[in-house]
Amino acid sequence: MKKVRVFAPASIANMGCGFDVIGLALDEVGDILEITASEGDGLTITNISGVPIPEDIEMNVITPVVRSFLRKIGQKAQIDVVICEKIYPGSGIGSSAASSAAAAYGMNELFGCPLSDEEVVVCAMEGENLASGGYHADNAAPAVMGGIVLIRGYEPLDLIQLPVPGNFYCAVVHPHIVVSTKEAREILPKAVPMHDAVRQWGNVGGLVAGLCTGNIKLIGHSMQDFVAEPYRKQFIPGFDELRKKILATGALAMNISGSGPSVFALCDHKAIADASGKILKEHFDAMGTGCEVYVVKVSNKGAKLTHLTI
Amino acid sequence: MKKVRVFAPASIANMGCGFDVIGLALDEVGDILEITASEGDGLTITNISGVPIPEDIEMNVITPVVRSFLRKIGQKAQIDVVICEKIYPGSGIGSSAASSAAAAYGMNELFGCPLSDEEVVVCAMEGENLASGGYHADNAAPAVMGGIVLIRGYEPLDLIQLPVPGNFYCAVVHPHIVVSTKEAREILPKAVPMHDAVRQWGNVGGLVAGLCTGNIKLIGHSMQDFVAEPYRKQFIPGFDELRKKILATGALAMNISGSGPSVFALCDHKAIADASGKILKEHFDAMGTGCEVYVVKVSNKGAKLTHLTI
Repeated sequence: MKKVRVFAPASIANMGCGFDVIGLALDEVGDILEITASEGDGLTITNISGVPIPEDIEMNVITPVVRSFLRKIGQKAQIDVVICEKIYPGSGIGSSAASSAAAAYGMNELFGCPLSDEEVVVCAMEGENLASGGYHADNAAPAVMGGIVLIRGYEPLDLIQLPVPGNFYCAVVHPHIVVSTKEAREILPKAVPMHDAVRQWGNVGGLVAGLCTGNIKLIGHSMQDFVAEPYRKQFIPGFDELRKKILATGALAMNISGSGPSVFALCDHKAIADASGKILKEHFDAMGTGCEVYVVKVSNKGAKLTHLTI
Repeated sequence: MKKVRVFAPASIANMGCGFDVIGLALDEVGDILEITASEGDGLTITNISGVPIPEDIEMNVITPVVRSFLRKIGQKAQIDVVICEKIYPGSGIGSSAASSAAAAYGMNELFGCPLSDEEVVVCAMEGENLASGGYHADNAAPAVMGGIVLIRGYEPLDLIQLPVPGNFYCAVVHPHIVVSTKEAREILPKAVPMHDAVRQWGNVGGLVAGLCTGNIKLIGHSMQDFVAEPYRKQFIPGFDELRKKILATGALAMNISGSGPSVFALCDHKAIADASGKILKEHFDAMGTGCEVYVVKVSNKGAKLTHLTI
């Protein structure tokens, strides 16, 4: 019998302009799993986090991750997973990716690290597929690898870890509005007008150049999203006015986190992130919409082992 | 009376995936202008390059550049331009941009450099607008500034000079096929399917990351263009087979230069660029299509003063 305790962080997909291709890992907030491997052939999942998730094991993102890992390494085992801490599903900060990444990373550690980082991400994407019906890596890759990750391409998967210059903080708000990932995807047009597409990849180039060269202003300017935000912001009441207030604090940018409804402000000082967090909370409080606010550092760490028993 | 002799280089727009947002400057090949400013109010253009260009001054890209420069600085002058050397129009390596950049840069030098680099590019874009009916900077910016330039956005113009790692060479072929920029633009769809758009900005991110971090392989992988090339390659007979042969030499990528019909191979060794140049020539020779081939270094130098008389 061998047992690991693993953490995988929350994450923010898209980072504005990088729709489906960029994601960043947050510090501290995340999922914690304990995974035990012993002889046999089966899987149990026990949830002691207090966060409600589906009881049917076939509906839990951890299940396809564990199965695909074992299939990949060609082994059978009895796997028992305990979910100790869990980000609320639907919070828009990569709840399903944190579980999937922790499961994939933990399984790899349990079995002596036969898979590369990229292969661990591919396993974690099985969970993302169950959650949203698509093989996306923009939360799963940063949740495994940490930092800011560019998914250059999916055919084959090509993950580029980008530098995180300075001390970046995110103020993230999760307003209690229900928007499913499916609904947020369906509202998007099937094609992007050429003019907007050109502006979008100009911005992706600017964002990557800003990260690589430490040009903080360029990062902020480049995060504007012409493709998803114009459609998705309708789910978030007062989005445009909120952004004006947030940018007035000195925040670099404010965007929708992933498919929403969470919103985040990227800041290069803790004090600005704190001020942004306060404004985000006030905005949704004033509307009578409950919300949680996190102010967390952008992390260079991804999934990690916190305990190992042999 | 004051006189300058200026050079502005040829350039390659798009660099594959960076449709309308990336361009690179070439070494040695380019336009040379002599510009004289004296008291008065008028413009003459004399062409001694031997390359046929429109005789009507209103059809010459230099004219709107000179006028916009003088308007911008609020001065009148008699300007006499002599075109000493000229890239063949329609060659697909930024012929109009080289003239426009040389004129804008030369005027700025003549009048004591009142404009910033970006403002000089804005002047040069007046020439691009006359040539192709659009304010594009993807040839004009590298022709003025040198190196590889990202046009992050046009509203306002935001130019980012990207690092040029190592010794990059381009083998460029100009096959004698007539494709107007207008025709090459009209064949493109008005909207990009979301799937292709995502792949394109993943590649733009990869290209910029590769340039910034000196990851040569990443640069090559990222240059694939999903947006313009699938339509424009039909103007270039045998494009796909040609690329296979070029990549077999060790070239990093082969793409259409700007709107075509020129094609270039990006290489990180002179010997590979020479081998690629040979294959490019053989390909069009075998088809009975005349062509010129250049093998030139990617330049970090843009427009420059070669002589000044006061």
